[in-house]
Amino acid sequence: MSTQQTFTLAVVGGDGIGPEVTAEALKVLDAVSAVHGVTFDKTEYDLGAKRWHATGETLPDAELEEIRKHDAILLGAVGDPSVPSGVLERGLLLKLRFALDHYVNLRPSKIYPSVGSPLANPGEVDFVVVREGTEGPYVGNGGALRVGTPAEIATEVSVNTAYGVERVVRDAFARAQARPRKKLTLVHKNNVLVYAGHLWKRTVDAVATEFPEITVDYLHVDAATIFLVTDPARFDVIVTDNLFGDIITDLAAAISGGIGLAASGNINPDRTAPSMFEPVHGSAPDIAGQQKADPTAAILSAALLCDHLGLTEAAAAIEAAVTADIEERTGSPRTTAEIGDAITKRAAG
Amino acid sequence: MSTQQTFTLAVVGGDGIGPEVTAEALKVLDAVSAVHGVTFDKTEYDLGAKRWHATGETLPDAELEEIRKHDAILLGAVGDPSVPSGVLERGLLLKLRFALDHYVNLRPSKIYPSVGSPLANPGEVDFVVVREGTEGPYVGNGGALRVGTPAEIATEVSVNTAYGVERVVRDAFARAQARPRKKLTLVHKNNVLVYAGHLWKRTVDAVATEFPEITVDYLHVDAATIFLVTDPARFDVIVTDNLFGDIITDLAAAISGGIGLAASGNINPDRTAPSMFEPVHGSAPDIAGQQKADPTAAILSAALLCDHLGLTEAAAAIEAAVTADIEERTGSPRTTAEIGDAITKRAAG
Ligand SMILES: CC(C)[C@H](C(=O)O)[C@@H](O)C(=O)O
Ligand SMILES: CC(C)[C@H](C(=O)O)[C@@H](O)C(=O)O
Repeated sequence: MSTQQTFTLAVVGGDGIGPEVTAEALKVLDAVSAVHGVTFDKTEYDLGAKRWHATGETLPDAELEEIRKHDAILLGAVGDPSVPSGVLERGLLLKLRFALDHYVNLRPSKIYPSVGSPLANPGEVDFVVVREGTEGPYVGNGGALRVGTPAEIATEVSVNTAYGVERVVRDAFARAQARPRKKLTLVHKNNVLVYAGHLWKRTVDAVATEFPEITVDYLHVDAATIFLVTDPARFDVIVTDNLFGDIITDLAAAISGGIGLAASGNINPDRTAPSMFEPVHGSAPDIAGQQKADPTAAILSAALLCDHLGLTEAAAAIEAAVTADIEERTGSPRTTAEIGDAITKRAAG
Repeated sequence: MSTQQTFTLAVVGGDGIGPEVTAEALKVLDAVSAVHGVTFDKTEYDLGAKRWHATGETLPDAELEEIRKHDAILLGAVGDPSVPSGVLERGLLLKLRFALDHYVNLRPSKIYPSVGSPLANPGEVDFVVVREGTEGPYVGNGGALRVGTPAEIATEVSVNTAYGVERVVRDAFARAQARPRKKLTLVHKNNVLVYAGHLWKRTVDAVATEFPEITVDYLHVDAATIFLVTDPARFDVIVTDNLFGDIITDLAAAISGGIGLAASGNINPDRTAPSMFEPVHGSAPDIAGQQKADPTAAILSAALLCDHLGLTEAAAAIEAAVTADIEERTGSPRTTAEIGDAITKRAAG
């Protein structure tokens, strides 16, 4: 059987190591898609620090609307010390996540046997964090008065709606249902953030009645960080708020293969707009342009992208190639392109 | 020289293992104070789950005012699953912290060579987190509309003032100045929470000019969790917001001796009200009343209490006793009272 599918892909390399790791992810995507009878029609968008310095623009609405027309987005990394903190994060990355309604921020964590963990006895780690992506303290609903004076006051508002919480909780339950262990842990801080926390807890309890096979668990976010280092194997699916998800997924990456392996998908499950795939790591400006970055997280993000587009075989081929590559890592350094080439060869082989 | 000093101490055992571990801390305090010519005049306050079930009260204002008259407060733990989440935390524990203006929540982390860490190579860990205690998302400034309907919205407001941030930042700098490494790390999330984050960053930058010997560093909270498991030895003094401090100090406890050893002081540095000392751990209702809890964190909190009252020798005696006890731990279980007795004997010896 031979079918030829074409997908349009918006590519945002971004800042620092972003363009380097994205180039490798594209290499793998192109090789795998050729094998599986798929074509990616790519458009690059020049967004990030350089663009901002040159034009003062982060993401003009017209460009956002162009990006919106694609089937998916591949993003490298955003942020540079030369740009005031928050400008690119809020004006580019979060603008994309919010405008395209990426309410499921999916972040899998897995320990590859051959990759060292900073934990002495990590056990068998294989969980996924479903981080809410469009609400919480990330909504940009803050403000400041009398800035720069001794009477300054700055606020940040976490906004949580039944609409927003229920849809991500449902997604997390569906994912738990599809996994062998069928376990879901809600992470929040409902003993202090009682309004938001109780909304989350009530929602999980209500949706749980529709999923009788799922074991449901609750942890305060502080306690969750303890278990992530003392017993990470206990987790299967974690569902949590935008900010708590940000924090615990960096920790989760650190205790499993490290931030060089952590992939993520900013997913719009309703498919009303393209989903966006990006490594969890940042732009790492200190090693940018030196071919020192590990492109594996970007490549695994491309696998999540294939999966989202229904290209299950392509996704599996990329994942298998990465696993094989990781298992043969000797510790002697390879360039970004060398790692990308090795994985490409395996994935297309 | 023989001087006799008397200090008044309000004691709140609280819930779960709270009363058990507090009893051991008092044992140690009494023994050490006798040696150092000090008397603690103790009043116990029956607050917590049992009281709430019996009377519906968490902390009546009249009792708060009585507690306020003391020189210091020793607290065990607060919270029980039989009480709706948040009732005791907000109505008792946080009410004390806020009413008594405990703006410095001090949480030291140290790895004792003989105590196992979940980390394979923790290195030499010896840092202290100065967690802000009276602002941030803990202010209780949230609300909810249309609760229980599909149109529910719940908000939580993080409140940050120049007044509140500057005083805790100054305290952290002073602590860094008194330590050999003279390093201060601000932990926040100023690329997303730009209003609060920039207030914190500007304040640290401004106060830093008065402390030229201090090396100042900034980390986003997500990145901080990575370093806490990959290179915790890099930290000296961390200053951070109330919520971020809650999260990273549980993680810090987990990677050092575990939550059984983590002490804390809720300090009012201006001494306009008594400071309060408590273990970082919770009430652990699953092991309550079984003499299974480790009272070390409560005992180390009593050492912080002595230190705050100027009883430096007593504080040092308790710390030395704990260190000696920890070094001889064999792994065979002792009861809560046996651990307390062993440390008491050493501390008063
Ligand atoms: C860069 C930053 C805005 C972003 C976030 O906080 O979500 C990053 O930390 C992430 O986890 O993707
Ligand atoms: C019990 C809870 C309210 C408290 C907090 O969040 O501050 C606890 O976790 C702590 O760290 O002392």
